[in-house]
Amino acid sequence: MKTEQQQLRLIASCPDRVGILARVATFIAGMGGNITEANQYEDVRSRNFFMRYGFVLPGPESALDAFKKDFETVAREFEMDWRVRNVAYRQRVVLLVSKFDHCLAYLLHRWKVGDLKIDIPCVISNHDTLRELVEWYGIPYHYVPVPKGPDAKQAAFEKTADLIDAAEPDTIVLARYMQIFPPWLCEKYRYRVINIHHSFLPSFIGAKPYHQAEERGVKLIGATCHYVTEDLDQGPIIEQDVARIRHSDTIEDMMRLGKDVENTVLARGLRYHLEDRVIVHGNKTILFNR
Amino acid sequence: MKTEQQQLRLIASCPDRVGILARVATFIAGMGGNITEANQYEDVRSRNFFMRYGFVLPGPESALDAFKKDFETVAREFEMDWRVRNVAYRQRVVLLVSKFDHCLAYLLHRWKVGDLKIDIPCVISNHDTLRELVEWYGIPYHYVPVPKGPDAKQAAFEKTADLIDAAEPDTIVLARYMQIFPPWLCEKYRYRVINIHHSFLPSFIGAKPYHQAEERGVKLIGATCHYVTEDLDQGPIIEQDVARIRHSDTIEDMMRLGKDVENTVLARGLRYHLEDRVIVHGNKTILFNR
Amino acid sequence: MKTEQQQLRLIASCPDRVGILARVATFIAGMGGNITEANQYEDVRSRNFFMRYGFVLPGPESALDAFKKDFETVAREFEMDWRVRNVAYRQRVVLLVSKFDHCLAYLLHRWKVGDLKIDIPCVISNHDTLRELVEWYGIPYHYVPVPKGPDAKQAAFEKTADLIDAAEPDTIVLARYMQIFPPWLCEKYRYRVINIHHSFLPSFIGAKPYHQAEERGVKLIGATCHYVTEDLDQGPIIEQDVARIRHSDTIEDMMRLGKDVENTVLARGLRYHLEDRVIVHGNKTILFNR
Amino acid sequence: MKTEQQQLRLIASCPDRVGILARVATFIAGMGGNITEANQYEDVRSRNFFMRYGFVLPGPESALDAFKKDFETVAREFEMDWRVRNVAYRQRVVLLVSKFDHCLAYLLHRWKVGDLKIDIPCVISNHDTLRELVEWYGIPYHYVPVPKGPDAKQAAFEKTADLIDAAEPDTIVLARYMQIFPPWLCEKYRYRVINIHHSFLPSFIGAKPYHQAEERGVKLIGATCHYVTEDLDQGPIIEQDVARIRHSDTIEDMMRLGKDVENTVLARGLRYHLEDRVIVHGNKTILFNR
Repeated sequence: MKTEQQQLRLIASCPDRVGILARVATFIAGMGGNITEANQYEDVRSRNFFMRYGFVLPGPESALDAFKKDFETVAREFEMDWRVRNVAYRQRVVLLVSKFDHCLAYLLHRWKVGDLKIDIPCVISNHDTLRELVEWYGIPYHYVPVPKGPDAKQAAFEKTADLIDAAEPDTIVLARYMQIFPPWLCEKYRYRVINIHHSFLPSFIGAKPYHQAEERGVKLIGATCHYVTEDLDQGPIIEQDVARIRHSDTIEDMMRLGKDVENTVLARGLRYHLEDRVIVHGNKTILFNR
Repeated sequence: MKTEQQQLRLIASCPDRVGILARVATFIAGMGGNITEANQYEDVRSRNFFMRYGFVLPGPESALDAFKKDFETVAREFEMDWRVRNVAYRQRVVLLVSKFDHCLAYLLHRWKVGDLKIDIPCVISNHDTLRELVEWYGIPYHYVPVPKGPDAKQAAFEKTADLIDAAEPDTIVLARYMQIFPPWLCEKYRYRVINIHHSFLPSFIGAKPYHQAEERGVKLIGATCHYVTEDLDQGPIIEQDVARIRHSDTIEDMMRLGKDVENTVLARGLRYHLEDRVIVHGNKTILFNR
Repeated sequence: MKTEQQQLRLIASCPDRVGILARVATFIAGMGGNITEANQYEDVRSRNFFMRYGFVLPGPESALDAFKKDFETVAREFEMDWRVRNVAYRQRVVLLVSKFDHCLAYLLHRWKVGDLKIDIPCVISNHDTLRELVEWYGIPYHYVPVPKGPDAKQAAFEKTADLIDAAEPDTIVLARYMQIFPPWLCEKYRYRVINIHHSFLPSFIGAKPYHQAEERGVKLIGATCHYVTEDLDQGPIIEQDVARIRHSDTIEDMMRLGKDVENTVLARGLRYHLEDRVIVHGNKTILFNR
Repeated sequence: MKTEQQQLRLIASCPDRVGILARVATFIAGMGGNITEANQYEDVRSRNFFMRYGFVLPGPESALDAFKKDFETVAREFEMDWRVRNVAYRQRVVLLVSKFDHCLAYLLHRWKVGDLKIDIPCVISNHDTLRELVEWYGIPYHYVPVPKGPDAKQAAFEKTADLIDAAEPDTIVLARYMQIFPPWLCEKYRYRVINIHHSFLPSFIGAKPYHQAEERGVKLIGATCHYVTEDLDQGPIIEQDVARIRHSDTIEDMMRLGKDVENTVLARGLRYHLEDRVIVHGNKTILFNR
């Protein structure tokens, strides 16, 4: 008979003090838990401490509830922001997209073959173009056009927010969604909305970054995966990468070459987020990616 | 008896027209020359044509003069900007540096072991710090402090320009020279002054780019080799590259990690320039690096 | 009225001699053609000359036939191996695959959105697993199991060859097809069969390269796109790339991370091949990828 | 008054068991220590546990001795292999080199500017070529030619070993030392001898890897930093990287381009080793490089 056990993950941050790790590790050991992964970081300037522990807890699923209840005492003692999650939990991820389908197609394929262990309750788009692709995967597709006027735009985003809410997502991915989220939507899903921007930020913020790159004559193009905030393309960066181009590459070539970079940067950034490897600190991220 | 021959390089640009290549190739063949390398690029928007041919011309060194004289006819016919150079010619390269010595040490070492086939008439610095290193290589070192006031600064740059002039350089390398060239100096040595900037331009223009990178929380740092123009860090880009950093890297770590990127980007950019692989077009470069 | 014209590509190799380029360029100019791209390479040791010219020829499609007929004289004079191709020609590419679908899914998606300008007459597989995916794209799927015994295997490859022949392909891509082509099949489609191998060759030839990589403890995994020859994984290499792994990555992690490298290496290699940028010379390739 | 404190590092491995981390963390906290870095890895197959903790211990330098004495109890309880080191300790590193000087010049420069916090008691070479460079840095240079015959070779390696012993090194770096260490020398300094091999191992083991790379027609060249063992170029790999080449690159070009890769791979590998980030496990390394 296989003993029941839960693979859990604890993420916490608090003001730095002597003995945090000992206290947490002893608590986990006291519950019979075996720590299998440990990451921590001390921000010397702000005197903040960040940690991420993976551990195996014996017992049934309800052991997680007991753990949470008891850990509250430790957390209060050290003034922690914390969360604990069952590794087996499949996050619900809503995808938003406009017309470019490469990021969407990449994520859907990786999801279908089991590389991406999430549930996708629906895809929302401001165009009706990609319905057939999405529905082939058996996923509901919602078409919510976003008109130009401020009132119509507001109504469209309210409808979008309703659809998102109904899907009860843990995470929202803007997989080349070419609309700017209004501040209230950013606020509502703070640090749960991931965007892929097709430039190496902070270069080429805003519209048409490949055109800007071509204009400036850079020798590498890039992509950036970041959390969406009220400041366009200025949110905390999760992941970035670049690809080499040459003088003879047209903007169309850049767009084609950029697709692979966008896909892998988004996939890596999303994976880091899903595995609770990203902690936002100020406008930067601590990334426990090892 | 080994037949005398010259390995030459022809670089030219002109308005696009049918038959340019045929005319030039036929001319070279008519002189007994054998083309061994050919690069060309047609800029579709501006209708400009750019070429770089490597060829072997039989005859003594003076054959180059004859070639130049006769080619003038072809050049005029096609309204060409052009130059031809003996590959064996060793460019004279003056190096300017402040206190950070990694780029300087890298170039001097590569020069000493014969990887960099140039002459270095002198090194000029606004500090006296690196004299011992430079003089160990047997190269004259000129210390020209650059004071703060506009008049003193002007005098310092005039002295710097005099020293550069006296060295009769083909190319000037700012190997981490932390002073901004005045416009008249930029003008004087147009597209002959190469700078290494320690960021992935256009991100983090100006002072302390690693501090800016740390502030923004980027996941990659970079370096850019470019021609110096009147607009700070805005000149035509020759080469760029990046290196991965992590949240725990301090500014000091970035500076240390950045050294390798700066060195290789500067070395590659300088090599492209020395081998006449770079043609400036507007504020961009055509880079025949293959 | 838009003048009719053809965008053509000439690929040729011959023993090195003075005046090849002049002769070819003059011939093209004589036909009214305008050369827009030129690549050439002289192999000093074998004294062979390789070239690839892109040019615009005025006139209707039949101008290509006239060009071919007349160029024969030049070709004979210089003992050239040569071919000329209309850039607008869409190659017919047959894909072979086993069970891993990432390369197939990648190529099909890029084909559907127009990034890959080819026709795909059919997909052939030794498993029936990927039928649904392929047929969603409207492409015929042939299931040809390859049994173990030599006779049955021979029969299976004969059937495979018949299906390939019927599809009249220019190029055959083994997109993770886990069967070894028999020598007669290699011979039949010499330098027209492209394979993607999931290691950085020559490391980890043969089966289960990720297992071999894990066993050796390498810090980077790779992928290699090459022409298939009688010697397993030893054919001329077209393209390679790598990705970083860490000690905690399992073989499953490597397989997942390797997918992106395999996809981009195969996509780049195939593109180079389709654009006639690859010339096989001995067991190596000359790659005019700029 | 600044309180005295030591920045220490504990590296340990043992059979996996519940509560290791809690026991160690509690022990450190009990000594008043504050853990600032934590890395750990559980090898699932061998059921081994590996850890690396950085922590600040209050008290004078002698506190380290007290720590070591008391920790012995914990170590015995968990059957640990372990060591603890003061981060301020400067390792003594002996460099061995033959004629190629790029790795040597790189390490010496980085050492002189303070990027590499080691002591270099001497450089040993089987050639007298690089004496001037080494002595400019004020470092003793020992010339020990290695003749061909087995007896003379044995004598040469005995003399080399004597010079190494006299220098009392923690670590020995073969910075392009083109002689094969005899098994008894490998045994004597087990996992303390670091070599840089100029290929992406396991490709191109042994002599002239760039020639082998050219022969095979690879599209990337590489370098590998590894521990020296009795099996030539087969020891545990610490770090690797690659650089792109093209068909027109000669072996000389590869050697020149390879220098930058060799330098950075050796520098990174050495740094990981010096910072106790590398733990050998079987013939692989666990690399706590984050």
